[in-house]
Amino acid sequence: MKAEILAVGTEILLGQILNTNAQYLAKQLAELGITLHYQTVVGDNPQRLTKALDTAFSRANLVIMTGGLGPTQDDLTKETAAAYFNAPMVLHEDILAEIKAYFRRMDRPFTDNNIKQAAFPEGSLIIPNHNGTAPGCIMEKDEKIAVVLPGPPRENIPMFEDTVKAYLREKSGIQIFSRTVHIFGIGEATLEQMLLDLTESTDPTVATYAKDGEVEVRVSSAAQTEKQAQEKIEPVVDIIRARAGNAIYGYDDTSVAETVLEALKSRGWKLAAAESCTGGMIASALVDISGSSEVFEAGFVTYANRAKMNMVGVKPQTLEQFGAVSTQTAQEMAEGARKTADVDIAVSVTGVAGPGGGTPEKPVGLVYIAVATKEKTVCREFHFPGNRLKIRTLTMKNALKMVLDQVK
Amino acid sequence: MKAEILAVGTEILLGQILNTNAQYLAKQLAELGITLHYQTVVGDNPQRLTKALDTAFSRANLVIMTGGLGPTQDDLTKETAAAYFNAPMVLHEDILAEIKAYFRRMDRPFTDNNIKQAAFPEGSLIIPNHNGTAPGCIMEKDEKIAVVLPGPPRENIPMFEDTVKAYLREKSGIQIFSRTVHIFGIGEATLEQMLLDLTESTDPTVATYAKDGEVEVRVSSAAQTEKQAQEKIEPVVDIIRARAGNAIYGYDDTSVAETVLEALKSRGWKLAAAESCTGGMIASALVDISGSSEVFEAGFVTYANRAKMNMVGVKPQTLEQFGAVSTQTAQEMAEGARKTADVDIAVSVTGVAGPGGGTPEKPVGLVYIAVATKEKTVCREFHFPGNRLKIRTLTMKNALKMVLDQVK
Repeated sequence: MKAEILAVGTEILLGQILNTNAQYLAKQLAELGITLHYQTVVGDNPQRLTKALDTAFSRANLVIMTGGLGPTQDDLTKETAAAYFNAPMVLHEDILAEIKAYFRRMDRPFTDNNIKQAAFPEGSLIIPNHNGTAPGCIMEKDEKIAVVLPGPPRENIPMFEDTVKAYLREKSGIQIFSRTVHIFGIGEATLEQMLLDLTESTDPTVATYAKDGEVEVRVSSAAQTEKQAQEKIEPVVDIIRARAGNAIYGYDDTSVAETVLEALKSRGWKLAAAESCTGGMIASALVDISGSSEVFEAGFVTYANRAKMNMVGVKPQTLEQFGAVSTQTAQEMAEGARKTADVDIAVSVTGVAGPGGGTPEKPVGLVYIAVATKEKTVCREFHFPGNRLKIRTLTMKNALKMVLDQVK
Repeated sequence: MKAEILAVGTEILLGQILNTNAQYLAKQLAELGITLHYQTVVGDNPQRLTKALDTAFSRANLVIMTGGLGPTQDDLTKETAAAYFNAPMVLHEDILAEIKAYFRRMDRPFTDNNIKQAAFPEGSLIIPNHNGTAPGCIMEKDEKIAVVLPGPPRENIPMFEDTVKAYLREKSGIQIFSRTVHIFGIGEATLEQMLLDLTESTDPTVATYAKDGEVEVRVSSAAQTEKQAQEKIEPVVDIIRARAGNAIYGYDDTSVAETVLEALKSRGWKLAAAESCTGGMIASALVDISGSSEVFEAGFVTYANRAKMNMVGVKPQTLEQFGAVSTQTAQEMAEGARKTADVDIAVSVTGVAGPGGGTPEKPVGLVYIAVATKEKTVCREFHFPGNRLKIRTLTMKNALKMVLDQVK
């Protein structure tokens, strides 16, 4: 099956919103083993929309359209698709009643322009929308399929998950299963060299993706059942495990922060953080995860020197002799945070995030990260590239990875 | 001038990366007053790329292409555009020397496949790339213009800013100027009602955009000079100012965090934060801004009750009697943070960010924010909608706005 994604909306053409739907749907289609050759965006203009739909169906037999299902005169996606399939629009009284009920629940007045949201092309399969007023629909005729979904991601994603996915899975017969290996501490280029023989394989396919200092390796196989796919995937994951070893911190849906929380939880350890240049990012990454309160005890954002002394007990002479960005200060911050918060392990970071503040001796990107436990304190020096946000993000991730290494 | 954006890359079709370039370029074109009717994504396939470029030029006279400028066999964007314009590829020795120098600086080995990055269609204008190895180019022939840019945003955005923008501005003759008014504390629907007469105007146009609890009002006018546009825009901004009053916190490129830092700086005040459910987000939003060290003294992430007592001196009986999520705890956190960090003003937040932890009395979304100065402590109760991240983000923004109100 060959698919195209056709997003409808002048607000996308004006750059007012980002077309995240296209990425979501593209990923879903790839996982379903459905080929996608083009994505298109067109505005709320009936002539151009009609032409774009014609063009899409001249190249593909499945077109997924998003947006343009609202109550206004501009919203013409359903009507355009209906015209392409020569199907008249039919009002569904039961859906109209549901839309009216939705308005009552939301305590919003129902206006007549909303009636058109209950009209659908004759013979189409209706896709319920539990998060908004506009249901979607699937039309099928002469081996051509049009899937019509509303624009807001919080509406169309559940609709795709709940209804469209099963429909397309049945149509396509095969789907792509994959396993993701999360790696930290090996660069993408080096990893590519390490896995060169694997990336040449076509079943399963092996691909690497770099992001914020991490690399993901995805091993994928197209098959009719998950079991068949796993038989291809698992031996390759075993090889990656043998080669990347300790640099692997997790599999599939996970993050360094989640892995750290899990590892601390299973040891019954509590963590504190003392942050200078990251300024709360480490704490925030942990607190972002529900249930982190069991593990994350306290955070100190000691951005100013005075705060480093007062809050976590860094000695004035340490700051004077070695400076705020130094191994000594990082170590005293970690040890002080551990004692002050009375926890099992503490992590500290201090560095020059830029753009200002760099010197020849202590350039922008220089960061010290220390981890203190009851037994010992370890500290590492890093030189991170990039802008302020990139340096802070890399610092945060490396700090979490250093905690993980100490907990394990 | 009519434009199209053509993004080239199989990784976009597979959903591995989000096509943020399209949004960036779309916004830029809108600001230059250049009409955009279609955006397309196509993979690294020479036949389909050629066809997509044909289709784009059949509808538009300016096509901006992104991606596919790298050293591999797959990277064919420049070559395809050259073929469309019947221009042979010419090697530029000076650019080759620059690319080789770039590799030396990055301490990476230069391989021969990189030579093609120094070849460009004959007669094209070369766009320097200071952040990567692949320069871009502009081709022009028979009233048709192709702009070719590399895929990575950190390369193509500076290239567009530094070179392409001026080129297109000269070509298009007119451009769109706008002023953005930042509003906090009035919902988008209410604001739309307040500005209904203004939003019906066509020159200047007035549009509202809601994001994370804030609303932006953009007033835009198409003109040949900035002065002409400002004469249309300023009187409308005056009306908005008269109606929205105190809810306006800034204009154009700014954020609540930046406005808070500026306000504190001009008063010579230092700030501390004590965060529970936001867990470092307030600190991180401030530290994200270069130069924040002058103003932001210290942050306490007091996620656990014990940390609330030990770090900022919340009384055990307060926690026992009123609970961690209460006006009393928020107030003691703010006052304690102010005294402990020895600063002029402190903000505190405590709330239920969910998804777990809600009760009928203290449901998910209940948040208390307090601000303490030497003179007084104010505290407000909020009920935020949405998921954990949304609740935490709204809390962070409202906390910053409450600080701003106290500093002003």
